[in-house]
Amino acid sequence: MKIATTPPPPYYAVIFTNLLRNDQEGYIEMAELMETLVIKQKGYLGHESVRDCLGITVSYWESIDDIKAWKMQSEHLIAQKMGVEKWYSQFKTRICKVERDYEFCF
Amino acid sequence: MKIATTPPPPYYAVIFTNLLRNDQEGYIEMAELMETLVIKQKGYLGHESVRDCLGITVSYWESIDDIKAWKMQSEHLIAQKMGVEKWYSQFKTRICKVERDYEFCF
Repeated sequence: MKIATTPPPPYYAVIFTNLLRNDQEGYIEMAELMETLVIKQKGYLGHESVRDCLGITVSYWESIDDIKAWKMQSEHLIAQKMGVEKWYSQFKTRICKVERDYEFCF
Repeated sequence: MKIATTPPPPYYAVIFTNLLRNDQEGYIEMAELMETLVIKQKGYLGHESVRDCLGITVSYWESIDDIKAWKMQSEHLIAQKMGVEKWYSQFKTRICKVERDYEFCF
């Protein structure tokens, strides 16, 4: 997993922070499917994802409308439903406007 | 590490995504010191941090001015300098306004 390359601000970010239940059957396969689908979505700019016990996934988007379209994408709706019913014990989703950014490369 | 409890939007987020070099001497101690200091800062609302190979730390703030004050805090300036000179191979910092959020708890 690399640091996402994103255009100059403004753009949008979805910070998805989550904790899993014990039964994770089917979770990794669904996460992989979502990865193959999200990169094809209109307005997708990149994402970063890490899990320790806590999982943090940040995805970057051109617009709020692009975020809404991904939220309503048909396979993603199924994934969200299964996430609530089966995989997640807790999550929080934050929709943000990225106003400034800066970077460092050694 | 838990999901941060934050007030209703709007508030601000700093998404700090980073990769470390091989020599991490002193890094964990500095990260722990920053944790004890950041929670005392004016306007601090919470933070979430996970590292796999990639590290993602998201901190939440009441205002942009509170973010600027933390960036200029004296020990934090030393940590940032050592980060650039010694620990990080790459990082990206994104300053965001959280416009909406929603959550789930099983």
